[in-house]
Amino acid sequence: MYYLGVFFGGFTIEAGVVSENGEILLKGVIPTLKYRTFDTIIQDMAQLCKKVVSNAELDLEKDIQYIGIGSLGMADNEKGVISYSSFFNFYNKEIRREMKKYFDLPVFVENDANCIALAESLLGASKNYHNSVLITLNYVIEAGIIINNKLYRGAFSGAGEVGHQVIVFEGEQCSCGRYGCWEAYASANALVRDARIQAIRHPESEMFKMINGDIRVMSYKVPFEAAKIGDKWAIDLINLYIRYLATGLINIMNILQPQAIVLGGRISEEGDFLLEPLKEMISKKFYGDHTLLKTDIRLAELGEDAAIIGAAMIGKKDLLIN
Amino acid sequence: MYYLGVFFGGFTIEAGVVSENGEILLKGVIPTLKYRTFDTIIQDMAQLCKKVVSNAELDLEKDIQYIGIGSLGMADNEKGVISYSSFFNFYNKEIRREMKKYFDLPVFVENDANCIALAESLLGASKNYHNSVLITLNYVIEAGIIINNKLYRGAFSGAGEVGHQVIVFEGEQCSCGRYGCWEAYASANALVRDARIQAIRHPESEMFKMINGDIRVMSYKVPFEAAKIGDKWAIDLINLYIRYLATGLINIMNILQPQAIVLGGRISEEGDFLLEPLKEMISKKFYGDHTLLKTDIRLAELGEDAAIIGAAMIGKKDLLIN
Repeated sequence: MYYLGVFFGGFTIEAGVVSENGEILLKGVIPTLKYRTFDTIIQDMAQLCKKVVSNAELDLEKDIQYIGIGSLGMADNEKGVISYSSFFNFYNKEIRREMKKYFDLPVFVENDANCIALAESLLGASKNYHNSVLITLNYVIEAGIIINNKLYRGAFSGAGEVGHQVIVFEGEQCSCGRYGCWEAYASANALVRDARIQAIRHPESEMFKMINGDIRVMSYKVPFEAAKIGDKWAIDLINLYIRYLATGLINIMNILQPQAIVLGGRISEEGDFLLEPLKEMISKKFYGDHTLLKTDIRLAELGEDAAIIGAAMIGKKDLLIN
Repeated sequence: MYYLGVFFGGFTIEAGVVSENGEILLKGVIPTLKYRTFDTIIQDMAQLCKKVVSNAELDLEKDIQYIGIGSLGMADNEKGVISYSSFFNFYNKEIRREMKKYFDLPVFVENDANCIALAESLLGASKNYHNSVLITLNYVIEAGIIINNKLYRGAFSGAGEVGHQVIVFEGEQCSCGRYGCWEAYASANALVRDARIQAIRHPESEMFKMINGDIRVMSYKVPFEAAKIGDKWAIDLINLYIRYLATGLINIMNILQPQAIVLGGRISEEGDFLLEPLKEMISKKFYGDHTLLKTDIRLAELGEDAAIIGAAMIGKKDLLIN
């Protein structure tokens, strides 16, 4: 028996046929093109699903047990909806009902970071830990919490909104409407904002040269690249970024004390250049030096496949709390 | 069969004989007198335990199944130690070994807020919720996390250190050594500090009159009392205090999304005068207004007995995660 795992992302929709043990047999990808109507996007998602099943030479009815969808934003599996996504501007989008137009299969929906957390916990960076938190550092920050090898989704399916913990009281406005959220300081979007300011202030910086003085093309990679070649202004910026990142991570450690924190998402691709100073910062600042840092901080291992694999697993009740 | 539940607090040590269903048969209290040696304090604790058992006309060996101790600070039941308490200045104090000098019974040790959370979840304000967080607002801020009716203690027995989530990046120094912790803004200690500053700045305030201009005698109750009789400066201060309090609570909601948050500790004794504006603030600011506030925010119900009752329950493995 196989499962269809679907990642409903901001830029791509990916679908894969996944085996019982989490192996992807075959996968496919299409662009999300978010400005289309919801019905049209889901129609394309359904076609993609059918295509990967037929390309894998499987039979939808005989071989596929269910469809699991890992989506950006807050998902409510009980209602079968994406309850909210600021990126898509979605409110209570009935994704199960839409998918049911094309499939006579159970359809599950879950937040994408929760799916990634489940996949990394089963097969990836956190497979040797029973309590862990997976954090995706992208244009937004999301997380999935694993307790006793199961996904903890909270009372209303929205746990793990770690990006919306306030770390700067009444600070920068966040995309969620509140002020001072971690996401407004430690996401790729926040880093781009701060890098633009730093580049404008310091036209002598490598960052400014790398973008030819056009701050519109600034990306979160520029300050990392400039810091790697020794640009003072970029180094300062990355150091501040790491302080922001560490602050939110330490908060999560103090609240949940997981065995491991796993960093995923685009920014985690900076690898050891990010991880080593981050671990040092956390170790020094962790709970006022009184206890040694016991929580392992690691990089995610499954890359882009994690969302598909995790989505394919979310119909398994024994992997979920509640 | 009965259990001995002990609360090891900063000012008092309380012990009670507790029944299977969490009823306190008889309890006793002694002052902690924290500046004595650890051995001496535990000797007194043991004597108190023996006294309540004999006063209850029970036999230590026949009637008491185990001793559970709920202590200030971080407790590590695996090692049987209080691993850290800034208030006591304790590091790895071997409380089980000390107590074993006086009793041939199993001895369990747990953080006091975790015990209170367990008690409120079994018999008090959170008994109708399977996921909840109990927060004690005292001179420090602690918490206990209940998931599926069980106490979640984290990987290293220190989960629930919610007081040490940073809400003001690089802000006021906290007793833990870090900067900007919630405890440094929303604890009774923080409120006293801010009330002193406000009273000095505004000698025309009721707060200043209430303490006869002597800021040494300021207590966390003064700004509440002054606000209740309409003192503008106290009202401003309490409003700011509620903003700090709300910020940390919303962070916990966004990360854990419990069904209920229960407020205990001295500051929660302000009751609806605190709770109503707090709930309104949280409802308005919760996740940018996009979702309705679903987490119930309630006051603790068991008062000072909660720590004794919860401590008496911590030897029951089916009430604990891990």
